[in-house]
Amino acid sequence: MARPSKREEIVEAALDQFHTHGFNATGVKDITDAAGVPKGSFYNHFESKEALAQTVLARYGDSRRIPDLADRSVEPVARLRAHFGFLRGEFEQLGLTRGCLFGNFGAEVADHSEPLRASVHSSFRTWADAVAGALAEAREAGAVRADLDPEGTARFLLGAWEGALVAARAERGAAALDAFFAVTFDALLTHP
Amino acid sequence: MARPSKREEIVEAALDQFHTHGFNATGVKDITDAAGVPKGSFYNHFESKEALAQTVLARYGDSRRIPDLADRSVEPVARLRAHFGFLRGEFEQLGLTRGCLFGNFGAEVADHSEPLRASVHSSFRTWADAVAGALAEAREAGAVRADLDPEGTARFLLGAWEGALVAARAERGAAALDAFFAVTFDALLTHP
Repeated sequence: MARPSKREEIVEAALDQFHTHGFNATGVKDITDAAGVPKGSFYNHFESKEALAQTVLARYGDSRRIPDLADRSVEPVARLRAHFGFLRGEFEQLGLTRGCLFGNFGAEVADHSEPLRASVHSSFRTWADAVAGALAEAREAGAVRADLDPEGTARFLLGAWEGALVAARAERGAAALDAFFAVTFDALLTHP
Repeated sequence: MARPSKREEIVEAALDQFHTHGFNATGVKDITDAAGVPKGSFYNHFESKEALAQTVLARYGDSRRIPDLADRSVEPVARLRAHFGFLRGEFEQLGLTRGCLFGNFGAEVADHSEPLRASVHSSFRTWADAVAGALAEAREAGAVRADLDPEGTARFLLGAWEGALVAARAERGAAALDAFFAVTFDALLTHP
């Protein structure tokens, strides 16, 4: 296998560092040390830590399995459950730490960096559109209440997921995740 | 009026700085400068920035109007709506910036500081218990579905609120807040 490029090594190391420590607590040197590249080489590849963080957010978004939300071979409510189940499994494997990079950057840096604010917003939009698509299918199939608004409900559910991650990190326990699944799938997305 | 004590000036300045910039982006000197006290005096009052942040979280919690959630002179669902309406109004006054200090610290520092993790968790618990109390009253009064679990629903709603704040900051728009109110009050907490 070809050795990954220096740029690629920087992106992978930055994803790990930003996700673990946050944007402000991660310096360029932390990233280049983790990537095993000289600090001086950083600016050959990225204009700034902020520009790198935009690339990292896109890379993280690619790992969210968002295309699976449009997989019509699976019933739409089951598809949504599997989607959040995948995210939960990943979060539990990390010992209920790190949370979601979209939410972390949204909370920490969206107020202070216009490019990162726009990137986080665009990430949420792409994700919410995919969830809304599955919800619209579920409504069409009569699997959820007919007055459910797919777009508003999608926004709401992504917010609820993001908040559940933060509460679970603070608790070091899964109760907020259990509440997310119970309310979402046993109360909100139920047959009318 | 008596001049506030130096300690009090530090707490007020730190609340503003932490809320605006986050924990890691705020240095002790930023706080003492904002408070108008010498940097050297900081450690006469607080052992560390982390210890101050715990005091600040408690102060912030005192401003959340949590006791109003137990005010039986107001119908419980209306009380919940007024509570989130108060929080929304405050957030809108800040131009959809800053969000909630509980959620911000949860996302930024809960993984890295055991005392702050415990403080954030305790803040969420106190708040969730108050919301659960209002939901239990609503259920008893037949104002919401009989199978609603007050504690799980309270956790869920606080997560949804926290996530809505992050999405609204990223959007610089109120759509996520609108979705929170619509789904919460028109779909979830409706008469059975």
